[in-house]
Amino acid sequence: MAIPDRDIPTNRLEAFSDAVIAIIITIMVLELRAPAEPTLAGVLKVVPEFLTYALSFLVVAIIWVNHHPLMHAAQTATARLLWSNLYLLFCMSFVPFVTEFLGRDYREPLAVALYGLDLFLCTAGFYFLRMELIRQSRGDAVLTKYQKHIQMKNAIAAGLYFVSVPLAYLTIYASYSIFVLLPALYFWPEKTLLGE
Amino acid sequence: MAIPDRDIPTNRLEAFSDAVIAIIITIMVLELRAPAEPTLAGVLKVVPEFLTYALSFLVVAIIWVNHHPLMHAAQTATARLLWSNLYLLFCMSFVPFVTEFLGRDYREPLAVALYGLDLFLCTAGFYFLRMELIRQSRGDAVLTKYQKHIQMKNAIAAGLYFVSVPLAYLTIYASYSIFVLLPALYFWPEKTLLGE
Amino acid sequence: MAIPDRDIPTNRLEAFSDAVIAIIITIMVLELRAPAEPTLAGVLKVVPEFLTYALSFLVVAIIWVNHHPLMHAAQTATARLLWSNLYLLFCMSFVPFVTEFLGRDYREPLAVALYGLDLFLCTAGFYFLRMELIRQSRGDAVLTKYQKHIQMKNAIAAGLYFVSVPLAYLTIYASYSIFVLLPALYFWPEKTLLGE
Amino acid sequence: MAIPDRDIPTNRLEAFSDAVIAIIITIMVLELRAPAEPTLAGVLKVVPEFLTYALSFLVVAIIWVNHHPLMHAAQTATARLLWSNLYLLFCMSFVPFVTEFLGRDYREPLAVALYGLDLFLCTAGFYFLRMELIRQSRGDAVLTKYQKHIQMKNAIAAGLYFVSVPLAYLTIYASYSIFVLLPALYFWPEKTLLGE
Repeated sequence: MAIPDRDIPTNRLEAFSDAVIAIIITIMVLELRAPAEPTLAGVLKVVPEFLTYALSFLVVAIIWVNHHPLMHAAQTATARLLWSNLYLLFCMSFVPFVTEFLGRDYREPLAVALYGLDLFLCTAGFYFLRMELIRQSRGDAVLTKYQKHIQMKNAIAAGLYFVSVPLAYLTIYASYSIFVLLPALYFWPEKTLLGE
Repeated sequence: MAIPDRDIPTNRLEAFSDAVIAIIITIMVLELRAPAEPTLAGVLKVVPEFLTYALSFLVVAIIWVNHHPLMHAAQTATARLLWSNLYLLFCMSFVPFVTEFLGRDYREPLAVALYGLDLFLCTAGFYFLRMELIRQSRGDAVLTKYQKHIQMKNAIAAGLYFVSVPLAYLTIYASYSIFVLLPALYFWPEKTLLGE
Repeated sequence: MAIPDRDIPTNRLEAFSDAVIAIIITIMVLELRAPAEPTLAGVLKVVPEFLTYALSFLVVAIIWVNHHPLMHAAQTATARLLWSNLYLLFCMSFVPFVTEFLGRDYREPLAVALYGLDLFLCTAGFYFLRMELIRQSRGDAVLTKYQKHIQMKNAIAAGLYFVSVPLAYLTIYASYSIFVLLPALYFWPEKTLLGE
Repeated sequence: MAIPDRDIPTNRLEAFSDAVIAIIITIMVLELRAPAEPTLAGVLKVVPEFLTYALSFLVVAIIWVNHHPLMHAAQTATARLLWSNLYLLFCMSFVPFVTEFLGRDYREPLAVALYGLDLFLCTAGFYFLRMELIRQSRGDAVLTKYQKHIQMKNAIAAGLYFVSVPLAYLTIYASYSIFVLLPALYFWPEKTLLGE
C-alpha cells in the first residue's frame, strides 16, 4: 500500500457543506418563539421576524442551489478550493445571527448594515471559489469564458450587497430594496446576477 | 471538458432534504424542558407538550416516508421540482414553531388554527411536487393515471387540513380530530389519503 | 417506465438514522451552560450534568454502533422495519430531555426513573427491529439461531432497564448501578448484553 | 445468507463523523446572541465571543480537514478505531461549551485553561487514532515511517496544548499565543504540526 491520498474528495466536501447549510437554514427558525400572547396581535408581533427568516431562507436556498454546479465544476479539491469553501460556510454561519438581529431591530441602520455586510461576505466567498475554478479551467477557452461570465455576475451581486452597507445609514429602504431585488432577479428568466 | 452540468442530481436533493427533515424532527424535542418541579405534577404539566411533539413527530415521519418515492419517481431535478421541494422544506421548518405554540396554548383556537394552516401548506407542497411529476409522466398513460390517483388523495388531505383552520374557531375538537385522523388513516391497510 | 418503486432503500434509512442520532448525541451538550461563576466551584456545579451527559453519550454511541449491523442484516426495508426504526428514533429523541432532567435533579427518584424508562423504551425498539429480522431470516436455520441469540441479550438488557424504574423509588443507587453496568458490560470481551 | 458482517464500514463512520462535526461547527454560532443594544457599543460587546467563535471554527475546520486522510488511511474499521473516533467526537462536542465560556470570561485563567484542556484532549484523540493506523500499517516499512512522522507532529501539538493549561495561571497571553500559533502553523507551507 502506498502513502495514503491526502486529498479531500469533492463528494465529502459536498456532503459536509450540505450538512452545514441544512443546519444553518433550519436553526434560524429556532429564533421564532411562540408568540407571548395567543392573540392575533401577539402573532403579528412575530411578523418582522417571520419576514426576515423567509428572506434569509430564500438567500440560503439560492446559495445552496448555486453551490452545487460550482462544486460539480471543480476538477480537484485543492487546498484553495477547500478553504474558500470553509470561508463561505463560516460567513454563512452568521446568517442566523444577522437574521435574528434584523428581525428584532428591523428599523435600525446598524442591523440592516450588518445583514448586508454578511451577505456581501458570502457573495465574496463565491467569488473566491469561482476564482479557483477559473484557475482550474486554464487551457479550455470555452470553459474559461463561461466561468468568467458567471464571475462578472458574482462581482455585480457582491458590489450591490457592499453598497447596501453604507446605504443603510442614508435610508434603510434602499438597502432593503437590494435585499429583495437580488433574490427576485434570480427567478427572472435570464437568471441574472444570483443565478448561473 | 464541456460546460459543466447545471442540474442538481436528485441524490444531493434527497440528502439535503433528509438532513433538513432530520433536524426538524429532532429539534422539536428541544422545546421540551425538564419539568420545573421534580414531581409527578411537574411531569404532568409537560404532557400537552409531549403529545403535540408526538403528533408532530408522526406527521414529519410520514412526510419523510412519502418524500422518498416522490423523489424517486422524479426523472429529472427540474428547477420546478427543486423549488417546490424547497417550498415544502420551508413550510416544514415551521412545524417546530407551531408545535411549541400548540403545546403551550393547546386550548387556544389561534394555536390550533396555525397548526392546521402549517400542515395545509406542507400538504400543498406535496401537491406542487406531484404536479411536476404528472408533467414529467406525460406520454405514459399508466404512470399518469397512477400519479393522478395519488394527487387526488393529496388534494383531499390538503382540503381537510384547510378546513381545520376555520373549524378551530367553532370547536377546537373538530380540528384535533382531523389532526389525529389523517395520520391514523395512513396506517389503515388501504393507505388512504396520507399514504401512497 | 413502470410504476415507481415505493420502498425506502436501506441506505436512505441508514443516512436518516445517522443524521438523527448525530443530532441527538450533539445537542445534549447544548444543555451544558458555561458555569455562572468562573471559579472552580462554579465548574464543579456542572459536574453532575457533565457525568450524565457522558453516560448518555456512551449509551447513544453504543446504540449507533449496534444500529449498523442491525440495518445491514435487513434484507428489505419493510414497513414494519421502517416504523420500528422510527419508533426507536422517537424514543432516542427523548434522551436529551431525560439527560437534562437527570443532570439537574440527579438525586430525585423521578428523574432516575424517567431516565431508566426511556432507555427501556429504546432497548424495546431494538427488540422490535430484531423481531422483524427474525421474521426475515425464516428458512435459514443458522441465521435464525444467531438472531434469536442476540434477541435474548436484548430482552435481558430491556428487562434490567425496566427494573431500574421501580428500583429508583427504593434506592437510586441500584438504578445507577444498572445504568453504569450495562454500557460497561458492552466493553467486556464477550460483548454480553448490549453488544452483538 | 451467512451471519451478517458486524463491521461498521468506514463510509458510515465518515458520514456520522461529518454530521457530528457539521453540527458542532454550526451550533457554536447559536451562542452569539443579537446585541442587546442596536448600537456600535452593543456590537463591540459581542467581539470577544466573535473572536473565540472564529478561533474554534478554524480549529474544528482543521480537525475536519485532517480527519479525512486519517479515515481514508484506515484499512478496516476495527473496534479500536471506532471507539477512538467516538472519543474524539466526544471531546470535540465540548468545543461549543469551552468556546462559550472563553467568549464570556476571556480574561479568566480558568476559562483559558479549560479551552486548552479540551483542545489537548481532542489532539490526544488524533494520537489514539494514529496509533491504530500505525498498528494497521505493520509490514509496510514506508507507510509505518510516514505514520510515525505524523504521529510525532501530533505529539508535539498535544504537548503544546497540554502546556497551555498550567500556563494560563501564569499568564493567559502565553496560552492564547499557543491557541493562535498552532492553527497558523497549519497554513505554513511545510504544514508543520497540525497539518499532514
